[in-house]
Amino acid sequence: MSVFSQVDHQWMARALQLAARGRFTTSPNPNVGCVIVSASGEMVGEGWHEQAGGPHAEVFALRQAGANARGATAYVTLEPCSHHGKTPPCAEGLIQAGVARVVAAMQDPNPLVAGHGLQKLRDAGIEVQVGLLQGQASALNRGFIQRMSQGRPWVTLKLAASLDGKTAMENGHSQWITSEKARLDVQHQRATSCAILTGSGTVMIDDPQLNLRVSAEQLGIGELAVRQPLRVIVDSRNQLTPEYRLFQTPGPVLLANKSVSPHLYGQQVRQWQCQDKGKRVSLPALMAHLAESGVNNLWVEAGAALAGALLQYQLVDTLMLYQAPKLMGDKAKGLALLPSLSHMEQAIGLEWQDVRLVGEDLRLTAAVGYSQA
Amino acid sequence: MSVFSQVDHQWMARALQLAARGRFTTSPNPNVGCVIVSASGEMVGEGWHEQAGGPHAEVFALRQAGANARGATAYVTLEPCSHHGKTPPCAEGLIQAGVARVVAAMQDPNPLVAGHGLQKLRDAGIEVQVGLLQGQASALNRGFIQRMSQGRPWVTLKLAASLDGKTAMENGHSQWITSEKARLDVQHQRATSCAILTGSGTVMIDDPQLNLRVSAEQLGIGELAVRQPLRVIVDSRNQLTPEYRLFQTPGPVLLANKSVSPHLYGQQVRQWQCQDKGKRVSLPALMAHLAESGVNNLWVEAGAALAGALLQYQLVDTLMLYQAPKLMGDKAKGLALLPSLSHMEQAIGLEWQDVRLVGEDLRLTAAVGYSQA
Repeated sequence: MSVFSQVDHQWMARALQLAARGRFTTSPNPNVGCVIVSASGEMVGEGWHEQAGGPHAEVFALRQAGANARGATAYVTLEPCSHHGKTPPCAEGLIQAGVARVVAAMQDPNPLVAGHGLQKLRDAGIEVQVGLLQGQASALNRGFIQRMSQGRPWVTLKLAASLDGKTAMENGHSQWITSEKARLDVQHQRATSCAILTGSGTVMIDDPQLNLRVSAEQLGIGELAVRQPLRVIVDSRNQLTPEYRLFQTPGPVLLANKSVSPHLYGQQVRQWQCQDKGKRVSLPALMAHLAESGVNNLWVEAGAALAGALLQYQLVDTLMLYQAPKLMGDKAKGLALLPSLSHMEQAIGLEWQDVRLVGEDLRLTAAVGYSQA
Repeated sequence: MSVFSQVDHQWMARALQLAARGRFTTSPNPNVGCVIVSASGEMVGEGWHEQAGGPHAEVFALRQAGANARGATAYVTLEPCSHHGKTPPCAEGLIQAGVARVVAAMQDPNPLVAGHGLQKLRDAGIEVQVGLLQGQASALNRGFIQRMSQGRPWVTLKLAASLDGKTAMENGHSQWITSEKARLDVQHQRATSCAILTGSGTVMIDDPQLNLRVSAEQLGIGELAVRQPLRVIVDSRNQLTPEYRLFQTPGPVLLANKSVSPHLYGQQVRQWQCQDKGKRVSLPALMAHLAESGVNNLWVEAGAALAGALLQYQLVDTLMLYQAPKLMGDKAKGLALLPSLSHMEQAIGLEWQDVRLVGEDLRLTAAVGYSQA
């Protein structure tokens, strides 16, 4: 096992900070940061992956370092790639630049890399160490890792409810339970997501746009374009029509159904038919399809039926509840349709991760654990 | 308006600290603390009201100060009393001791005092100032103040629910949604309450004892006896019988009904018949009766029907929700029965006061505001 110095920790922390800058723009690629430090301890180059198709973090850092990379240490938050993708392999770049040592936070879970990059470096005589701040590095790319290792996106279920767990009035209306600041926070959460999932029921009741309405400036991504998340709509029975606002709003849409819709949708709408025998779109099959489509992080804004179904299929990783300081009473609509419990142990267990005020609402973030089920 | 020095603030803060020591034991009296500081700035005596019938805070402090009280300043968290109650009036004691200045955090809302104590001091030539840290002082005695000024106790509605606002399974069982630490915290909350309210439904389903099961040592009240809160049970239709555990557990019980129960209850059970024409016990009438009985702080542990009724009558001041990290689904039972909403503005508004982890549960405290209703 490698032992890392305090200085190693500091530089890797910097590389992680850089990597996070790509969180609004790199998908389907992971977020990666790189810092190159000379033998005398000076930072000579740094960079991060900005967007798919563009240069990797190591390329930016090596460019900046130039001849100073010779004999230096490169800190990278993910194993350097070894395959020719849209860009040449970074492992080769590091070798050619003459770096003496590479410290990687973690191995790349992508089967096309999966240790080959590190091996290539070792074969070239470079000292390689892996595992520094691995927890932080994998948290940053939890969606990419889950897609690579399990073939499904990281799923965050967003809910907005009153303190008594109600999401809409008896008449179905839910505008607005939470405050404007909470809704702006939702925009930022959407911005970190590759796709947004909802069901036809929510579309028919609320007619949402489900798009990103924040600017590149608000996200702090400089010159880069705001990425409109793919809007994924489960419409098993083809109840929707092209008139709904989300189909009129620019940006890609995936319509998941069981047979091709009889309606004529615009070019930005792609239809996908779930091929199994069930009457409804299979949620596990949809997740597999989204993973194949490059969706790392899926953000769900759904009604109680779809939310409950995702929970029952154990497809929710994180729950984010915006809790408004109000009581709506028993007649109002609840958070999630789930089977009746006969023992408390059957409840779905959660683990608090974060609690904070967002405007006048509380935002509770919890990991979903199915161990109790 | 009086101007207070930093030193004044420090001593009053100390007096408030002392006053709070009585929070488990002084009812129906308020919590009061007193600090006596000599002209040279030395603390020469301090005390707090320990329990009803015992000496007031000023008596303890004056005893300790002895002759040093002459020319000193007395800091009291509540106006010194002017009437002969179970003890002689404290205003007279301060005058006889020769204090030169009295700083009171607030006037006594008790109509038997209500400024007379302060006037008596002024008439004796003592410099009197009022209003230092009044917000903190009135928060400490919010129950006493509300009873004196509005004729009803301060009502805290305790709820325990899953993240989706469910308090019990479809089969009615609720043991245990929250963790052991949350239940211990409830014991401490009960200990600060003069009375605990529930309904016959909860008694029939859960058969609770509703008593205090913490020791004087756990409460840190030294030699004083633990006060068993009055257990108040709304049993409009006399559905209960003396066999339920709460009637078998030592401590006073108030059975609120519409006619005398046909069952023979033990001596610790007092029955009270609500005299109005309704079929059910009137909750506003019950609150007035509890205030007359000396209940400052009422702690409610009730089911969705009684909780909803209290909310509708605008009788809840504080809501304390223990929120367990789990999801129970729509079939489980909700927090409060309330009429259906047609506009979001009809929801009952809350204001967050405190959010903290208690064991593995979140405890959310909110003030209940009916302004939105």
